[in-house]
Amino acid sequence: MFYPQILENLIEELKKMPGIGRKSAERIAFYVLKIPNSELSKLLSSLQKTNNSLFHCKICNNLSETEICSICRNPSRDKTTICIVESPQDMAAIEKSAVYKGIYYVLWGAISPLDGIAPQDLKINKLISYLKTEGIKEVIVATNFTSEGESTAFFLHKTIVDLKMNINVNHLAQGIPMGSSLEYLDEATIRKGIELRR
Amino acid sequence: MFYPQILENLIEELKKMPGIGRKSAERIAFYVLKIPNSELSKLLSSLQKTNNSLFHCKICNNLSETEICSICRNPSRDKTTICIVESPQDMAAIEKSAVYKGIYYVLWGAISPLDGIAPQDLKINKLISYLKTEGIKEVIVATNFTSEGESTAFFLHKTIVDLKMNINVNHLAQGIPMGSSLEYLDEATIRKGIELRR
Repeated sequence: MFYPQILENLIEELKKMPGIGRKSAERIAFYVLKIPNSELSKLLSSLQKTNNSLFHCKICNNLSETEICSICRNPSRDKTTICIVESPQDMAAIEKSAVYKGIYYVLWGAISPLDGIAPQDLKINKLISYLKTEGIKEVIVATNFTSEGESTAFFLHKTIVDLKMNINVNHLAQGIPMGSSLEYLDEATIRKGIELRR
Repeated sequence: MFYPQILENLIEELKKMPGIGRKSAERIAFYVLKIPNSELSKLLSSLQKTNNSLFHCKICNNLSETEICSICRNPSRDKTTICIVESPQDMAAIEKSAVYKGIYYVLWGAISPLDGIAPQDLKINKLISYLKTEGIKEVIVATNFTSEGESTAFFLHKTIVDLKMNINVNHLAQGIPMGSSLEYLDEATIRKGIELRR
């Protein structure tokens, strides 16, 4: 303990944050020490509001300041196409690409037996009843290409096909990422690129 | 803007912190979203206390919860030896080595014409009067081995010698760091190691 206890306490709190080690925590603590009171108030109120005033959209589970999120409320979005993602971060990544015009469904996770996450722990039942009642024509399964994401995709595909409701179930195309040199790509991606060649 | 405004605001606040880019800020914001209220209160109160309840020690400028810091108050520290450092972080690094038993003086910076920091912007006048009145026998100049730190060291050395008070002015030894392989060291360090060989 080489800093005053107050500073050490803050460093300990900051170290709990993802990606923040001792050194980063110290740097942030010294930043907090120096910022004017007005800056600190902005930071504190943002932290508090984020923790207290954000909800899950009643329809798609996306983060929202209102009961129904801005995407589900947007009349120009195609409500017959639903894209299933693991997290709001994944949803944001797809939104940034600006090519998708349907709505989303956020699972808040993926099936992971090792972490004790079974299908019933994700919001899949609500998704199924939504699919049954809302006239969805196409589902795009956009879970991540990790083993957990792929298990989830497999499970969702089977579950939705088993509904026998004539819903099209699609998955994101796999292959070589844009702008990449083959030289630096992993073998698994190159293998996919060859297998799925068009 | 793909997240709710509240979350985007927090991400903007977090991005102001040193070493935090957009991605890290998003990760921390999602962490804040999920932590229980009790954890959030601990974080908020730590941030507030750090910003409001820490002072500079009246003697050495070190961070302190009290007027005089714990090192200056410690009767077993040698009050005739003073080690000049740029920051409390540098001080903490020396304390961790557990070999120094004197007191410190924190400049809170280094001379840097490019950043507009001149000698009078550092707390050097206070240091000089301290040296004049408190019977200091040895000064260890422990500024960093950057160009700013070295300019500061040069300036301090000259200023203290010019006092003609028979104060010993020393500097940290330079050379090869412990545990290092010569193969991976920069040339400047190896050059120092050879020049200053014992």
